[in-house]
Amino acid sequence: VENGDSVALSTMFDAVHPADIAHLLEVIDGRSRKELLSLWKGGLDGEVLSELDENLREEVINSLAPSELVDAVRELDSDDVVNLVEDLGSEQQEAVLDALDASDRVAVEKALAYPEESAGRHMQVELVRAPQHWTVGEAIDFLRSDDNTLPDQFYHLILVDPRMKAVGYVTLGRILSTRRDVPLNDISEDSFRTFNVNQDVEEVANAINHYHMITAPVVDDDDRIVGVITIDDAMAFIEEEAEEDLMRLAGVGEGSLSDKVVDTTRQRFPWLAVNLVTAICASLVISMFESTITELVALAVLMPIVASMGGNAGTQSLTVAVRALATRDLTSSNVWRVIRREALVGLINGAIFAVVMGLIGAVWFGQPMLGVVIAVAMVINLVVAGLAGTMVPVVLEKIGVDPALASGAFVTTVTDVVGFFAFLGLAAAWLL
Amino acid sequence: VENGDSVALSTMFDAVHPADIAHLLEVIDGRSRKELLSLWKGGLDGEVLSELDENLREEVINSLAPSELVDAVRELDSDDVVNLVEDLGSEQQEAVLDALDASDRVAVEKALAYPEESAGRHMQVELVRAPQHWTVGEAIDFLRSDDNTLPDQFYHLILVDPRMKAVGYVTLGRILSTRRDVPLNDISEDSFRTFNVNQDVEEVANAINHYHMITAPVVDDDDRIVGVITIDDAMAFIEEEAEEDLMRLAGVGEGSLSDKVVDTTRQRFPWLAVNLVTAICASLVISMFESTITELVALAVLMPIVASMGGNAGTQSLTVAVRALATRDLTSSNVWRVIRREALVGLINGAIFAVVMGLIGAVWFGQPMLGVVIAVAMVINLVVAGLAGTMVPVVLEKIGVDPALASGAFVTTVTDVVGFFAFLGLAAAWLL
Repeated sequence: VENGDSVALSTMFDAVHPADIAHLLEVIDGRSRKELLSLWKGGLDGEVLSELDENLREEVINSLAPSELVDAVRELDSDDVVNLVEDLGSEQQEAVLDALDASDRVAVEKALAYPEESAGRHMQVELVRAPQHWTVGEAIDFLRSDDNTLPDQFYHLILVDPRMKAVGYVTLGRILSTRRDVPLNDISEDSFRTFNVNQDVEEVANAINHYHMITAPVVDDDDRIVGVITIDDAMAFIEEEAEEDLMRLAGVGEGSLSDKVVDTTRQRFPWLAVNLVTAICASLVISMFESTITELVALAVLMPIVASMGGNAGTQSLTVAVRALATRDLTSSNVWRVIRREALVGLINGAIFAVVMGLIGAVWFGQPMLGVVIAVAMVINLVVAGLAGTMVPVVLEKIGVDPALASGAFVTTVTDVVGFFAFLGLAAAWLL
Repeated sequence: VENGDSVALSTMFDAVHPADIAHLLEVIDGRSRKELLSLWKGGLDGEVLSELDENLREEVINSLAPSELVDAVRELDSDDVVNLVEDLGSEQQEAVLDALDASDRVAVEKALAYPEESAGRHMQVELVRAPQHWTVGEAIDFLRSDDNTLPDQFYHLILVDPRMKAVGYVTLGRILSTRRDVPLNDISEDSFRTFNVNQDVEEVANAINHYHMITAPVVDDDDRIVGVITIDDAMAFIEEEAEEDLMRLAGVGEGSLSDKVVDTTRQRFPWLAVNLVTAICASLVISMFESTITELVALAVLMPIVASMGGNAGTQSLTVAVRALATRDLTSSNVWRVIRREALVGLINGAIFAVVMGLIGAVWFGQPMLGVVIAVAMVINLVVAGLAGTMVPVVLEKIGVDPALASGAFVTTVTDVVGFFAFLGLAAAWLL
């Protein structure tokens, strides 16, 4: 199809879900992408744009004429428009805003005024309200009258009091299965709770997941309903958050396979630079014991084992702690218990590996005392790994630094330094 | 409240969402948990049980009398019952199944017959069907008649042909906003697609996320509708999957903070054991160069730097590759491009750090050639890290091993061995 037949291409893409088109664009290489886009231009719609990866979206949007962009954006929900528009230059942003209906424009501009990761920025203003004193019958008549335009997708009626304060919600299923004379108030859902526009959108997403909600009502400072966060968006945030933790723990930052090589190199650089500094710290510890090593070169052979075991045990504790902090399973109420637990786990595993490694060390080099040294160093380092692996992320979270981002470097430094110091120090004291 | 007042406790818990009670039980320590449960016993309902962490759930269920368990389970949806029952001993399982209605019992037994991670095992059989030839009016009359019991939560009507084959679905919102004489077929959703009972439930969850679906219809081998996977369950699977990847990459396996110390120790042990073996491999490489190190002890000081930089770069590539495999962004169509890309990123970062570390090495020990050796070793190891970090998970996935679980050990072994070998080997060749 890629030899110029743009009509065939359009017909083919019409039958494909926008998310699949976006995925295709992400997976193919840069040149094919350009050819495909120039061929298909007219058909590119807003849905595809909003499904695209952020970096790629910028590239695609820049390749569009302003009029094409405006056409593509017009039929989107308010939250998707905001999501597209927030990354644009002010000129393109203006062009898109001008093309919207007055009411949509106001909604988008309002949303852009909220902080970047807030519920207000990501909410959809399309929702269906009903006065709380209505009965099921009144609600059905309202929904079925021709006078109002309903959103494309909605699953709840949100009940409001006379001052537009959100007070509850009712699922459409419940409305359909209830007699006409029952007040809406009597069949509203237990899980109802509201979220402030300024609240972090990830908190809202976590609440949607935790309470099995389908829509989360967003209210302003006067408790008036102004929008909703829907479960499908919440799902995307939850996935993003877990992925972010994963990437940050590995020192990768944001980024995807469709980024340019230069960008990827730049994303990975900082973590490697930090690692270089911590590795040099560890080397400084080793250099303190140069003369010890010269006398007994077996120490140089065995020392990476102690450090590496400590590093791994530290990463284990650290990963569990970072995830538990993110899911609020680790709080100030149980932090001491968790730290004690991790130290104990380190002690038990440390003791087991101490015996194993002590025997290996003693047999390999024929020096029982060398076995004792590596065994004791192993226990010390694994206990320290458990302690540092938990305490570092907790302290970082407390002082407002993202634990997923910074913990790894600290914990590895601790386990490297302690590992080398314990092993070489004990060797210097007991063996020579 | 914890001094014995069980009435006050029940009243308090009645107002709390089951998910919050479950979370509370997970966060408090073992002793308080036991006290709380014995105090509150009667009130414990199925919802709380199904929100609990798996290991903890087993503990709680074992503390319940069979009759209490049966009471708790009765009002749950079929998928939640299955989820509870699958981990029980056969005697308890029998007791619960006996207490269910005949039709519920059949549904649960059928679900238990499907493989563990299949859509059939996790689907909910409560759903609302309508013949595809109905009009909106007929559907509304059906939903509002008193003759049928509707599920607690539902958001779609699933359209079926005369042989019960699922052919489309219609949202309740669309039904409410459409005239009575319009056929349901005309307002069915574009995103409709079905999933086989034997399909992996994570694939279904990913599709729900990808296509923004609210319910995913599950069909048997004859395409007849047998259940649905709902978006709130899909959300839990997506979160679980991302968390699993994270935990496996860190070598933690399953597990949570509420596990016993012995269990946690046992979960972490295998990865540390694997790491011990790989660390010993690296030590064997070092021991090949014992005489080189004795002549120039600076090598022992600097060698961990090369290995550690390689390990980190490898982890970066590896994490990106594992995630991309999980999200299907890395496929056979772009694998060579990605490998080339990672090697190039390794080359560029390697070159930068080679210059930096070369200068440091040369200045620190006053030997320019030592700087050259560490610089060249650094470039080699970072390129190898990029290659191994991508190729190892791809190959593991190909041969059916979970890349998140096993890649780390392989990649670290490669970067350690290559790092020590390149550095010490070049030193032996060029410096002595």
